[in-house]
Amino acid sequence: MVIVHEILDLETDQGIGIYNLSPQIQEFIAASSIRNGQVLICSRHTTTSLAINEYEERLLEDIKVYLHKLAPANQRYLHNDLHLRDVPEDEPENAHSHLMAITLSSSEVAPIVEGQLALGTYQSVLLFELDGPRQRTVFLQLSGE
Amino acid sequence: MVIVHEILDLETDQGIGIYNLSPQIQEFIAASSIRNGQVLICSRHTTTSLAINEYEERLLEDIKVYLHKLAPANQRYLHNDLHLRDVPEDEPENAHSHLMAITLSSSEVAPIVEGQLALGTYQSVLLFELDGPRQRTVFLQLSGE
Amino acid sequence: MVIVHEILDLETDQGIGIYNLSPQIQEFIAASSIRNGQVLICSRHTTTSLAINEYEERLLEDIKVYLHKLAPANQRYLHNDLHLRDVPEDEPENAHSHLMAITLSSSEVAPIVEGQLALGTYQSVLLFELDGPRQRTVFLQLSGE
Repeated sequence: MVIVHEILDLETDQGIGIYNLSPQIQEFIAASSIRNGQVLICSRHTTTSLAINEYEERLLEDIKVYLHKLAPANQRYLHNDLHLRDVPEDEPENAHSHLMAITLSSSEVAPIVEGQLALGTYQSVLLFELDGPRQRTVFLQLSGE
Repeated sequence: MVIVHEILDLETDQGIGIYNLSPQIQEFIAASSIRNGQVLICSRHTTTSLAINEYEERLLEDIKVYLHKLAPANQRYLHNDLHLRDVPEDEPENAHSHLMAITLSSSEVAPIVEGQLALGTYQSVLLFELDGPRQRTVFLQLSGE
Repeated sequence: MVIVHEILDLETDQGIGIYNLSPQIQEFIAASSIRNGQVLICSRHTTTSLAINEYEERLLEDIKVYLHKLAPANQRYLHNDLHLRDVPEDEPENAHSHLMAITLSSSEVAPIVEGQLALGTYQSVLLFELDGPRQRTVFLQLSGE
């Protein structure tokens, strides 16, 4: 049984951004000795999140519209009363980003089969930046044999 | 440490369908030597998804109404402009199905304790077909000892 | 490879409640011999659920409002026709709680690194009671070495 981990670094753009992590995950698997097992992917921030779905540019735009419809930025949120909280000066008003994050996933586990990230044909591991731009990290852990 | 996997095959019905995978998962566990560990369940499609909840027929209908309310099929979606995408001739207009999929889960991990799928009394592992009818697969991986 | 599990017991309050499980998870990790691996956290009920996000009291109120907006309690649900179902006398009308539950997560997997629950700075493992008050349990499983 082998367990290894890695932290991916990303610099994200303004607003909501969706990033395909599959190539970097596959590289990390290939660099390991693991042939069969799992990769655990973890969002490390409360305004980033994960999903496994299709990385198709027009769909990505539909997803952004959908998330904004579920949790509009321009509504009244208690979390955005920054003067009532003990926060840094540059704290953003991002309650809606947290709501989007809990609607998506914080962690995903995907199989490794014969040294490959074994997803379906149209599936990619997607990182959602919900309050960019930021410096972000994603945690990857491989376990198996 | 034992790691084994299996692919389940399903033929789904029209529209949204919800299928109880617990019996097949329990059978796969029973056929293995694993007494304690985990089962990883993965959706292998971008318009199927997972949840662990109650398999109660009236609730399943409420869930379908809920998903249609969150992501109505009859709205304008960029992903449905099939003439602008490089897709097969029989590609369906299914942006709403993708949106439902990311709202639910792509992967679930459930415990195996003493050779049993150790869920709560009212919990079942549910596969959601969000764009049926189709031939679908679900990936199961057991790990443990 | 070590695999150990534990059941947490909680007594929840009326309505929606959000509980920070990270301290108890960290205690369980510290009491084990595992330095590197994973903790699997599972909701064991169909009206409790999980998320990993910020445990900030004003945000928690925003999340409750959000969940009630997505799945209002005072709508018509088939699951709430208790006279048409074979249920105990004290069965609550809680279809909306199930809908909230499937929108959040049933299982989360978080990494253990050097004997610590390795989440990001602002992340906590949150249990959502969606139909309190109740006696509830949460399943924790550590695996690693």
